[in-house]
Amino acid sequence: MGRAMGLAGLLLGLLLVPAVLLSTSLGRGDPPPEPELGLGLGLGEGPLAAAAEDSLWPLPQSLRTSRRQLQLAPDRFQLVHGAGSSAGPGCGILQDAFRRYYEYIFGQSRWRSPGRRWPSLRRELSQLQVVIAAPEPGCDSYPRLASSEAYYLTIAEPVAVLKADEVWGALRGLETFSQLVHEDDYGSFLVNESVIYDFPRFAHRGILLDTSRHYLPLKSILTNLDAMAFNKFNVLHWHIVDDQSFPYQSMYFPELSNKGAYSYNHIYTPTDVRLVIEYARLRGIRVIPEFDTPGHTQSWGKGQKDLLTPCYNGEQPSGSFGPINPIWNSTYDFMTKFFKEISSVFPDAYIHLGGDEVSFDCWKSNPDVKDFMKEQGFGIDYAKLESYYIQKILDIVSSYNKGYMVWQEVFDNKAQLKPDTVVEVWMANNYAHELSSVTQAGFTAILAAPWYLDYISYGQDWKKYYSVEPRNFPGSEKQKKLLIGGEACLWGEFVDATNLTPRLWPRASAVGERLWSSSNVTDLQDAYKRLSNHRCRMLRRGIAAEPLFVGYCAHEARG
Amino acid sequence: MGRAMGLAGLLLGLLLVPAVLLSTSLGRGDPPPEPELGLGLGLGEGPLAAAAEDSLWPLPQSLRTSRRQLQLAPDRFQLVHGAGSSAGPGCGILQDAFRRYYEYIFGQSRWRSPGRRWPSLRRELSQLQVVIAAPEPGCDSYPRLASSEAYYLTIAEPVAVLKADEVWGALRGLETFSQLVHEDDYGSFLVNESVIYDFPRFAHRGILLDTSRHYLPLKSILTNLDAMAFNKFNVLHWHIVDDQSFPYQSMYFPELSNKGAYSYNHIYTPTDVRLVIEYARLRGIRVIPEFDTPGHTQSWGKGQKDLLTPCYNGEQPSGSFGPINPIWNSTYDFMTKFFKEISSVFPDAYIHLGGDEVSFDCWKSNPDVKDFMKEQGFGIDYAKLESYYIQKILDIVSSYNKGYMVWQEVFDNKAQLKPDTVVEVWMANNYAHELSSVTQAGFTAILAAPWYLDYISYGQDWKKYYSVEPRNFPGSEKQKKLLIGGEACLWGEFVDATNLTPRLWPRASAVGERLWSSSNVTDLQDAYKRLSNHRCRMLRRGIAAEPLFVGYCAHEARG
Repeated sequence: MGRAMGLAGLLLGLLLVPAVLLSTSLGRGDPPPEPELGLGLGLGEGPLAAAAEDSLWPLPQSLRTSRRQLQLAPDRFQLVHGAGSSAGPGCGILQDAFRRYYEYIFGQSRWRSPGRRWPSLRRELSQLQVVIAAPEPGCDSYPRLASSEAYYLTIAEPVAVLKADEVWGALRGLETFSQLVHEDDYGSFLVNESVIYDFPRFAHRGILLDTSRHYLPLKSILTNLDAMAFNKFNVLHWHIVDDQSFPYQSMYFPELSNKGAYSYNHIYTPTDVRLVIEYARLRGIRVIPEFDTPGHTQSWGKGQKDLLTPCYNGEQPSGSFGPINPIWNSTYDFMTKFFKEISSVFPDAYIHLGGDEVSFDCWKSNPDVKDFMKEQGFGIDYAKLESYYIQKILDIVSSYNKGYMVWQEVFDNKAQLKPDTVVEVWMANNYAHELSSVTQAGFTAILAAPWYLDYISYGQDWKKYYSVEPRNFPGSEKQKKLLIGGEACLWGEFVDATNLTPRLWPRASAVGERLWSSSNVTDLQDAYKRLSNHRCRMLRRGIAAEPLFVGYCAHEARG
Repeated sequence: MGRAMGLAGLLLGLLLVPAVLLSTSLGRGDPPPEPELGLGLGLGEGPLAAAAEDSLWPLPQSLRTSRRQLQLAPDRFQLVHGAGSSAGPGCGILQDAFRRYYEYIFGQSRWRSPGRRWPSLRRELSQLQVVIAAPEPGCDSYPRLASSEAYYLTIAEPVAVLKADEVWGALRGLETFSQLVHEDDYGSFLVNESVIYDFPRFAHRGILLDTSRHYLPLKSILTNLDAMAFNKFNVLHWHIVDDQSFPYQSMYFPELSNKGAYSYNHIYTPTDVRLVIEYARLRGIRVIPEFDTPGHTQSWGKGQKDLLTPCYNGEQPSGSFGPINPIWNSTYDFMTKFFKEISSVFPDAYIHLGGDEVSFDCWKSNPDVKDFMKEQGFGIDYAKLESYYIQKILDIVSSYNKGYMVWQEVFDNKAQLKPDTVVEVWMANNYAHELSSVTQAGFTAILAAPWYLDYISYGQDWKKYYSVEPRNFPGSEKQKKLLIGGEACLWGEFVDATNLTPRLWPRASAVGERLWSSSNVTDLQDAYKRLSNHRCRMLRRGIAAEPLFVGYCAHEARG
């Protein structure tokens, strides 16, 4: 693995790698047709090609590569805006990406003496020209569910060209280009002449991080965003608060974190939140915050009086509290103001409103709640009370022109959902059936159930995550298209900054390829080889991704 | 957890903590009687005691603590050699430990202005005096199986006294002292007046690290040695080579690592090995290297021709190789020279010779081996051939005046073992029966079977490791005493520098307390509280120990 496999790679890289065929469906509009590219695929010149595609992850939709290699000189090679691009040096998102990918490609080698000359025998690649085709490149915008992440990448002497509609596709193409450049045994940087056309199979490819069960320092979150970009994930589902703690510092309700965070050290200030959002944006990653109610809210009650339901022990309040109290107007006054803040702090069009695992015991114990149930004619069906509450929250959030994501129970309990609601399927038991029901009802769905990465087990469990076929549920083609993606979830009961990165990567990478690459990319042996190399590359880039199995990397973690 | 639990601690710390009674057996000679200590256990003065013992790990054999607190001034407090000690400023092992524990106790606070005065109301502890009682303190020696690790620690105004026979006990007592000092909410360093008498229940308390399946950089090994000292472990079982790679750089046979290591980066030079041994010695930790033969030796064959058995496919050599070839004299010539080097490089009295999981398939395929079996009259019992081989290796190692440890199969296959052989029981299936058989035959045993920490699972698995009672096997009292300890094993198939520390700690801490503390220390709730605090302390000291469950530490890992 890593550099030392170069020789084995040589034997494999003799000829063209068979192109992976275009997948049949994008799920959100067809991709533009593949352009005509006159690329001379030379044979017989230069050294044999190392199989750079042995480390591509996730595998592009279409890849043609030649044995002809081009050399890159660190002190001459440039990432530049190409002719006709709607983006230029004023495009911060690309400028930042150029600097970042230069560093990933060349690492310390940029410090080589500029006087050094490369052997003239070699063909040289001198530039990567990035061309954004859309009149509005998106440099100052946020990625959206409907953003285009497609790109064309042609690598041929003397320049490579990366074309994309929007900057988001360019970011994905830069990652792919950086994965194609490899160092040979003599320290030269080489890339094979190649043509790549690529786009994601699913539009929503998320990682869930939980900052309530354990606080994650900002650095852990940013490191994870780096890793997400290396794996072409595009959504950070930030499960920011829960029963255990409330680290989100609210401007309207500062007592929520003053009282509800683990300590004054364990909060995300408005500046922290902005930093996460901007760091994510620069990597083409949406940040969807989850403020889960009415359950999972014990920590909310510490800083906000009269928000949670008082539980009763017979005739008397027991002193403990249950879910959000759905019967008081003050609850909705609070939520109206709270979600106004959230809608403005988080730029994404979606907010995750939770709605999972609501225990009815406390509601059932409370006489006022029981009276309310009678008034409303809910009988003894507390799912109706839950839906009553959720419905009001959905309406509040809608009034701020936000869409929402919810856990599957909200759908199961028959709340009235807007057509663009995204229902997240998390229950492992018969999730295919649930996907079928959700899409049958015409809602978009994302799948999380088989990808709860907090459930660890001995051995190569990445294969289990990799082998999931998300569209394998009963339903029409139209239903299948309503499944817009999935999420790898790392719940935080047993995870904090000490173990987050190696527990998440490269196990989440398996989900990353499943959600990006064509459905026919399923070969475990090939995936093992590429993923092993990809994990070594993540290590080099500062991500402490754990090993898949025995072996080594040329550049190990420092320990 | 951590500082923020101080208030809860106050409520618990009102009075004396019940002393944990002395355990009945040391397993290797009785401890000296507890000294008479005139300690005035004052009541009613000063602030209420925080329950510093809430973070002690492993729990001492005997602990009496008072509510009376003493304050430590970082710019005045000293760790010194006490009157009558056989050790003095020339004792490097203690000088090094004094500096180290000063740092652990006060951290950055030592930089406080020396002009600062503490409130005169407070009683002050100005010194910890360390007194080594034995005429030969052991400053320049290596810890041994028979070393005394017992210590007395009395903390009373104005000085604390730590008495131990040898430096090894002093090291354990320094760790305990450092665990008793705590910071209050105002940043003052406090310690309760206390009397502790402590000694290990088992003499062999080991951690197995595997540097063959993955190479571990030196820094990882050293960090782990720090963590071992924090948990009073005293043996690093260094499973240094195996099938996958041979990172040990031999002086006599440099080709073994030149060809058998993963790469030239992935070796331990003689300097590295000396550094590990010295770093361990300074922490009272023995380093027992394992050179496992005749199985698990694929990597040996790369740099040493004609060492492994050629396997046959019918009449023809198949090109692959099996275990060490036991029929050639050259094998034993090599081993004689190799173990001469190992015996001299590693100072410990024991070498682990492996002997586990020998597959007979290759031996059975080889016609020369079959002929040899006939000559020797072994019939078709290849276990006899294995024993024949092992016997010769044991004799070679004995000739260098070394003792040996072996995996249980060597005993099971009836090799002739020296009386001081340590048999390591690793097979999970009915290990109690195996312990019974080994000790019945009069051999000393150590237990690893229930503590294979590489087998991860979801949840609080530390409880499973903690709840093992090693002496719970059929046998006489005499047999029970032959069980001299255990090892937590972190095999390396899925572990490298990226995940070693959080995977090992604090899960191994559970094994640490089981092997150190009295057998009646079994309360899971109390252990949870102490271990949570202990893991936060490890974090502060730079060990990225993972969380036990939800919660936080005052000082989190930086991410």
